[in-house]
Amino acid sequence: MANTLNSDLEGITVAETRLSQINGEKGELLIRGLPIDELASNASYEETVFLLLNGRLPTSEETDEFRGKLASHRQICDEVQAVLQRAAREGKPAMDALRMGVAAANLGVEEQDLRKDIHRVIAVFPTIVATYWRYQQGKEPVAPRDDLGHATNFLYMLTGERPSEARAAGLETYLNTVVEHGLNASTFTARVVVSTESDLISAATAAVGALKGPLHGGAPGPVLEMLQEVYETGDAEKYVRETLDAGERLMGFGHRVYRARDPRAAVLESAAESFHTEKGDGEFFEAAQEFEDVATDLLAEYVPDRRLETNVEFYTAILLDGVGIPKDLFTATFAISRVSGWMAHALEQLDDNRLIRPSSHYVGETKRSWTPVEDR
Amino acid sequence: MANTLNSDLEGITVAETRLSQINGEKGELLIRGLPIDELASNASYEETVFLLLNGRLPTSEETDEFRGKLASHRQICDEVQAVLQRAAREGKPAMDALRMGVAAANLGVEEQDLRKDIHRVIAVFPTIVATYWRYQQGKEPVAPRDDLGHATNFLYMLTGERPSEARAAGLETYLNTVVEHGLNASTFTARVVVSTESDLISAATAAVGALKGPLHGGAPGPVLEMLQEVYETGDAEKYVRETLDAGERLMGFGHRVYRARDPRAAVLESAAESFHTEKGDGEFFEAAQEFEDVATDLLAEYVPDRRLETNVEFYTAILLDGVGIPKDLFTATFAISRVSGWMAHALEQLDDNRLIRPSSHYVGETKRSWTPVEDR
Repeated sequence: MANTLNSDLEGITVAETRLSQINGEKGELLIRGLPIDELASNASYEETVFLLLNGRLPTSEETDEFRGKLASHRQICDEVQAVLQRAAREGKPAMDALRMGVAAANLGVEEQDLRKDIHRVIAVFPTIVATYWRYQQGKEPVAPRDDLGHATNFLYMLTGERPSEARAAGLETYLNTVVEHGLNASTFTARVVVSTESDLISAATAAVGALKGPLHGGAPGPVLEMLQEVYETGDAEKYVRETLDAGERLMGFGHRVYRARDPRAAVLESAAESFHTEKGDGEFFEAAQEFEDVATDLLAEYVPDRRLETNVEFYTAILLDGVGIPKDLFTATFAISRVSGWMAHALEQLDDNRLIRPSSHYVGETKRSWTPVEDR
Repeated sequence: MANTLNSDLEGITVAETRLSQINGEKGELLIRGLPIDELASNASYEETVFLLLNGRLPTSEETDEFRGKLASHRQICDEVQAVLQRAAREGKPAMDALRMGVAAANLGVEEQDLRKDIHRVIAVFPTIVATYWRYQQGKEPVAPRDDLGHATNFLYMLTGERPSEARAAGLETYLNTVVEHGLNASTFTARVVVSTESDLISAATAAVGALKGPLHGGAPGPVLEMLQEVYETGDAEKYVRETLDAGERLMGFGHRVYRARDPRAAVLESAAESFHTEKGDGEFFEAAQEFEDVATDLLAEYVPDRRLETNVEFYTAILLDGVGIPKDLFTATFAISRVSGWMAHALEQLDDNRLIRPSSHYVGETKRSWTPVEDR
């Protein structure tokens, strides 16, 4: 029994959670009991995070207070700025810069409290990403503004200009949509780290490192490149057939958990639609919808035994591109949202903590002896 | 079945490993088949790490080459130095500084290769810790010397002086002894992070965060304080009885896995003994040995149904103190050794990788609806 190997831990339940419920068959996602489509289109990101942490939506006063707390924790110190500048100059990826910035997030702030620096952790992510990006573009960073909401301020720091309501709303819907999704690898990493009673900054830094991996953080950037390529050629069917004939996976389709359409895809699609309509820039969006139809039909033809539908990455690419997030920041923007899920899981872990420590099974050499160097 | 909760994953085998074998009943630890006592007292740290990574001891030429590779990766850039300086000035713990430095370890080095920056990761740990410590002492950091071995160079960077052979040998034995010990929480963290196909720096950073936690990184610092206190009062029995009567755990005794004496304790004891003898400074050491005898007897009296013997932390405290490591750096020095175990596990994981992703079980609210703010 001890030697049964569970190398992916699939189907092993390591935690009880009150944060989100996924119904893969039905294509449903509830955050604290609230359907993702209702939440994502109605809430501010601050309301969503409050809900995630407290199990209920905040009153108007509570929202103001929570927004203020986050806003007061946005600054990063000069030393961290210099590290991000160097990361940008050396062409390090955004997720590396984010790891560096988050690891140093307790510089310039008061002594850490394991359970209190949650505001600091969530607040500092957009500043790190935007600062890195400004340097990457050869520009000076833009200091955060504490009178702006979380989503609006991120766009402001990226561009130096206050974004339109439509852009801010589009980003806000995205941040709400991907905030929490059960025990993926990064969330699990955060729980493992705090299970040693380490701190929230260490947990968030570790989770950033896990999210960076291509098997987890996904590929919304490549999805965008694919859609742009197909938009130019105008021939979706050719692209899909060539990809599937070559035995390759079609990006933006299929999910480990969902057998139906990923419920987040619908939310992002609708946000992208209203956003593109408002911008009067509907052509690319319509081409993407058409691509989805073509691809879904062809996937049913090529892979008849499995239902492969649009996943969250597909409309993430379109929506984030639309609101003005550069594709090199797509995964980091995902992290800006998901950090709240990580922190909620970390606190849940600490509420009833046990050190997480699985076993390994030894299959190596049995007893050997030391060999002096002249006999090797 | 899916709802059986394994909140600590105890007894769940997540990996097959060829790195180390622990026999808790017998009190045995083999590294790649070699008993820890033979390895630790004979090998240089470079030889130990080569063994861990390659499954065999290196030839003389291989050792030179490996030592050279490590030595060439020791430098850290100015921006990281400035971050460490600030961490020291703000009184952040050594493990926080280490997390910051490791997270930024790919600054100033060539583009990362998932499987190649292992030398960089292992080489940079001592530089980060020593740089932080120098600033913490109000001194300028000492640049690494590439003509010194790993252990010797660390002591050199701490003090600015080349350490005696005895000190260097004492530290080297310590580094060899704790380099690898199966799937503890930090090692597991490293495996989870690379299972997403993220990189080795992200894995090491995450593992530092896990090791920081008091449930894992242990308490060699407090053990030293305890031994110093008892050395001054001279009354070991009183101390132990008071601790156990108060229902408290006696630091430095007992281990989750070992039912016999931790085999690493013997190696560290013997290293500490020869070191203290050489230094002509045996009194404190003898008092500690006496404390061990008294404590082991009393533990057998107080906890008759479980064999509680000296663990690795007990003689770690004495040995590290003896070789001149400040107690605030004990856990970071542990990390300087263990990073090689983390990296060996990370490579082992990548050799036959599957994404590690356990499940959670939802126990929260069922379907609710959005409530407008005025109705909350």
